[in-house]
Amino acid sequence: MQRTLFRRGCMLRPLEVPFRYLFGPGPSNVPPRVLAAGGRGIIGHLHPEMYEIMNDIKKGIQYAFQTQNNMTIAMSGSGHAAMECAVFNTVELGESVLVAVNGIWGERVAEIAERMGANVHIMVKAPGGVFSNGEIEKALAKHKPVLFFLTHGESSAGLAHPVDGIGDLCRKHNTLFLVDTVASLGASPIFMDQQNIDILYTGSQKALNAPPGTAPISFNERACQKMFNRKTKPVSYLFDMAHLSNYWGNDGQPARLYHHTGPVSGFFSLRESLAILAEKGLEESWRHHKEVAGYLWKGLEDMGLKLFIQNKDLRLPSVTTIAIPEGYNWREMLQYIMKHHNMEMTGGLGPSTANCLCITTNMNMFINHCI
Amino acid sequence: MQRTLFRRGCMLRPLEVPFRYLFGPGPSNVPPRVLAAGGRGIIGHLHPEMYEIMNDIKKGIQYAFQTQNNMTIAMSGSGHAAMECAVFNTVELGESVLVAVNGIWGERVAEIAERMGANVHIMVKAPGGVFSNGEIEKALAKHKPVLFFLTHGESSAGLAHPVDGIGDLCRKHNTLFLVDTVASLGASPIFMDQQNIDILYTGSQKALNAPPGTAPISFNERACQKMFNRKTKPVSYLFDMAHLSNYWGNDGQPARLYHHTGPVSGFFSLRESLAILAEKGLEESWRHHKEVAGYLWKGLEDMGLKLFIQNKDLRLPSVTTIAIPEGYNWREMLQYIMKHHNMEMTGGLGPSTANCLCITTNMNMFINHCI
Repeated sequence: MQRTLFRRGCMLRPLEVPFRYLFGPGPSNVPPRVLAAGGRGIIGHLHPEMYEIMNDIKKGIQYAFQTQNNMTIAMSGSGHAAMECAVFNTVELGESVLVAVNGIWGERVAEIAERMGANVHIMVKAPGGVFSNGEIEKALAKHKPVLFFLTHGESSAGLAHPVDGIGDLCRKHNTLFLVDTVASLGASPIFMDQQNIDILYTGSQKALNAPPGTAPISFNERACQKMFNRKTKPVSYLFDMAHLSNYWGNDGQPARLYHHTGPVSGFFSLRESLAILAEKGLEESWRHHKEVAGYLWKGLEDMGLKLFIQNKDLRLPSVTTIAIPEGYNWREMLQYIMKHHNMEMTGGLGPSTANCLCITTNMNMFINHCI
Repeated sequence: MQRTLFRRGCMLRPLEVPFRYLFGPGPSNVPPRVLAAGGRGIIGHLHPEMYEIMNDIKKGIQYAFQTQNNMTIAMSGSGHAAMECAVFNTVELGESVLVAVNGIWGERVAEIAERMGANVHIMVKAPGGVFSNGEIEKALAKHKPVLFFLTHGESSAGLAHPVDGIGDLCRKHNTLFLVDTVASLGASPIFMDQQNIDILYTGSQKALNAPPGTAPISFNERACQKMFNRKTKPVSYLFDMAHLSNYWGNDGQPARLYHHTGPVSGFFSLRESLAILAEKGLEESWRHHKEVAGYLWKGLEDMGLKLFIQNKDLRLPSVTTIAIPEGYNWREMLQYIMKHHNMEMTGGLGPSTANCLCITTNMNMFINHCI
């Protein structure tokens, strides 16, 4: 059959990418070494050398998460892929899930769990609010959830939520403890094993300084017991940990079978960003973020600005939120900064949109561009 | 609380990536121009310049798919993400789905549809088998599916399945026609609009020659009518087209809201690979694949080898499958070729594993390395 071809449209011009200082809550600027890794010629996603790189990534995540969990992988997707993976695999239809909502991330997890048919209960605080361990235990006792979700780095409000003791409460109530560290990992201390966190995930694009598109996630033995003894299959084939654990060589099988095609270049860059973190060391990374953030906080307060999170110990060292003084239009200010200084800062996401500005105090940014 | 840090493990050594000729069914080698695009410094996923790049990608996909569909985007994930997106959005619980299975891809879609609770019916042929339009119409009339799935480029067998006329049958029976072109797009002609295909997807990593991790997908008006008039929300928040259409600026809303963080570098490379296809032109790309594949087929047949797909007109010009002569161990042969020539070829995936070898006759490979 003879057919007429549509035209080639406006693709006949070069790719234009301006330089930007990425001071928003994410993604962050990517250092040249990580960009170079992502720009290497690719190999097959099932080559033995790729398995070696994936093994390195697994070890790098274990270090960054401070865990010895065998079931540690990187999702082929952004933080939301890890979010859905965690919920889809550990929860079955009709099971009770408890979600702490004090910003946008809790809202997202509640929606994800509702869509897959979980019985969702939420605990709500104003943006930036902190849940006490007493409040959490009361809700665990009341709702008997199989899964409790908390955001460690609540970037929409600039909060680093305390985690100590909650893992123990979850064990007592036979609940899995799921923690989101997308905005905090590498900047604010987290100890997956010692804090009894059952499932932990993060993104590649915040303090890890890799391009977005991969998301480290780890499950401990308790989580594996629950997710590998399901009555039904998870609703997503792509995010099914039974397959992903084989793809990552975690299931003890002699061969890795084809499941999906992983983002080879994304894995190269993630591997490199985890290597940089390992070389620097977590303690130095935490210290440096704290120092840089402290410097920024002081400067902002000296200018007469108020930070959105009052208590210094609860502030995220990777994302700083400023309460907007009355009478200022933050959209205009951000446009001015972008136009004249090529700097991205953003309004808060979700509930804090109306009243705060986000600035990333990402270590890499300050090392590369500001110090 | 004082805690002990786990050690940094074996991350303190450089990234090693060998050079490989990727002649497997995918991913393909990525040309330097596309690698360079993916290695550019990143910008925010919600910057106006990023929207321009996404608009270019949309136009590039429209050209490659030969469609004028507004609802055209790239998934933040591999071909399986597009597969799940198509099924999750257009099918509701209990609805009838018909899947043509003649290799691994139909099996996958059937499993995906089953997991989300569809009423799945399959038509089965041996690997490489062709479904006649008469057989398809009979099954459409019997099962009254809301969705019919067919693989255009069945890479596990090396088949380019005919598509003409099936879209019309699907319209007649009030069924959406979903076609997988992961292995064929850019190599074997497809005309989404003129062939009345309702939903079409592909991957970035085959004939498009970009790294894996993004997946173009397009929905026509009929598909949009069905998916945007659902009674229930799709089971995945991440793959919900109501959100993704806003993120891609397709829903007519003045603002694009934050949904997930797209793979910025992956979009840079996809944009560039689509630009290369537009510059070359589809007709030239199809012609070149056909010429190169024909050259390979002749050489193989002159050596006394038999191709798995007998009928030349049904062979995929992007993946050639060879029937393995009796008495040869294909695993040993592949290991030899990899070890001595750095060339990846693979056994067939799934049902054809036992009796054929796959060789990608990807245009880019032959241009860059073989001609």
